[in-house]
Amino acid sequence: MLWFTEYYSGEGMELQGTGLTFKVTEAFSFRTPFQEVLVLNTVDFGKMLVLDGAVQTTERDEFIYHEMIVHPAFFTMNSSPEKVLIIGGGDGGTVREALKHGVKQIDMVEIDREVVEVAKKEFPSIANKLEDERVNLIFDDGREFVKGKENEYDAIIVDCSDPIGPSKVLYEEEFYRDCLKALKENGVFVTQSESPFAQRKVHKQVVNELRKVFEVVRPYLAFIPTYPSGMWSFTFASNSLDPLGVNPGALGEAYGKFVKENGKLKYYNPEIHYGAFAIPNFVYEEE
Amino acid sequence: MLWFTEYYSGEGMELQGTGLTFKVTEAFSFRTPFQEVLVLNTVDFGKMLVLDGAVQTTERDEFIYHEMIVHPAFFTMNSSPEKVLIIGGGDGGTVREALKHGVKQIDMVEIDREVVEVAKKEFPSIANKLEDERVNLIFDDGREFVKGKENEYDAIIVDCSDPIGPSKVLYEEEFYRDCLKALKENGVFVTQSESPFAQRKVHKQVVNELRKVFEVVRPYLAFIPTYPSGMWSFTFASNSLDPLGVNPGALGEAYGKFVKENGKLKYYNPEIHYGAFAIPNFVYEEE
Repeated sequence: MLWFTEYYSGEGMELQGTGLTFKVTEAFSFRTPFQEVLVLNTVDFGKMLVLDGAVQTTERDEFIYHEMIVHPAFFTMNSSPEKVLIIGGGDGGTVREALKHGVKQIDMVEIDREVVEVAKKEFPSIANKLEDERVNLIFDDGREFVKGKENEYDAIIVDCSDPIGPSKVLYEEEFYRDCLKALKENGVFVTQSESPFAQRKVHKQVVNELRKVFEVVRPYLAFIPTYPSGMWSFTFASNSLDPLGVNPGALGEAYGKFVKENGKLKYYNPEIHYGAFAIPNFVYEEE
Repeated sequence: MLWFTEYYSGEGMELQGTGLTFKVTEAFSFRTPFQEVLVLNTVDFGKMLVLDGAVQTTERDEFIYHEMIVHPAFFTMNSSPEKVLIIGGGDGGTVREALKHGVKQIDMVEIDREVVEVAKKEFPSIANKLEDERVNLIFDDGREFVKGKENEYDAIIVDCSDPIGPSKVLYEEEFYRDCLKALKENGVFVTQSESPFAQRKVHKQVVNELRKVFEVVRPYLAFIPTYPSGMWSFTFASNSLDPLGVNPGALGEAYGKFVKENGKLKYYNPEIHYGAFAIPNFVYEEE
């Protein structure tokens, strides 16, 4: 009987003796220039992608992460974003959700070509829009890519891994400043921002650094069963738009039109749009 | 190195090859007439109470469960409930939170005296209000206790374990009907209602059975890192009151007064009061 266990560890991880374990029917792994890639077939979560020992995505619950990194921000915009930058996002799920809005061009900057290749081959239900003609795949360092860009994107989404190795610079104020410059005037920024329970200091750091750069900064939560503690966060930032300022009637109408065009979503809905921004006291009040 | 793993299994559990594992420094166990009790000292979650192999409560995250089973319902009431019935709740955390409101009497009906005894001895920060003079501890079968009661309680809280063994009858329509009879006219009912991700059928059954009995039935969610999938639910029910109908201004005022009297809560706040009732689509829309 094969089991894979993610024992939580690494920079920023406040749990030191906890792990999540999965029964596995098939497994293979290989090393890229950037990381160790492990592909599992699990009993409960279908296929699972693991990078450097940390679960990144599973067929069973990926919809939660990918819907929630895209739709709260995009439904906050007054019109569909035309040009979008995704940093990271190698499995393709963020591209898939972003394309459900009327996006004209997505630049996706992923550092590890081999992650995209394994996603296309092993996770077609997640990666199936990476070949879309609106998607411009760039294999490069996202931190470098964004430097010097000005007034170019309607939305920037940071779909990165933990602040270890190449992702570390994606958690810093200077990076956020470059993103603000790269955004158009009413642009929006979203990043995954770790677990407010298991990586609370890192989560708070992301929020604090973003507050130095953007006028409106709104962390929000989603249940992600295969991530540490199951309590996950994203943070929205903008200089002009506010997800909590969206008119409920207008959102209901936009959501209804979206569902007619794209079919139902599995997680996000107008109640979640507002409710996800309610944060338990302990996240920010405890020392 | 000692590790305890809860491998998810049992009636109603839809995960069959997943577990959560904890590094343990001390452990002891014993058997009562009703169940196997395991007390652990864990590295990440402090002391942990495990019944029949399932994590019930930990020092580190118990505040989430206990605040969320009590406060959304009690802040929905127009005045403090005077007489409260708690079914189960052996660790004492629900009593502790309920007493923060101006409750005059709590009848707590717990089937297993030895769980209460171990809680008082090993979990004093959770069980420390079980000796309060307003608390009437009754060691009996909660299902039987509620039969024949009429117009007696302002609130009934079902703080029970999974629908296995003695708790099974606490998930059925007939029990909910007896609870409705036992409630006063503007009474409120709350039950924990399992994980909408990991025990979705059981969760939906609770909601459906309650809808046959009560006019207003509102499931809601909380992040509980040590429970299966981390996505947990409770369900509020009443014939007259609605948590989503509470006036935000009045709630803010009541909450401010409550915090002045009791100190800060760690999870519940007015934003959570409304936001917790936002439910992702997959819970009810998928087959």
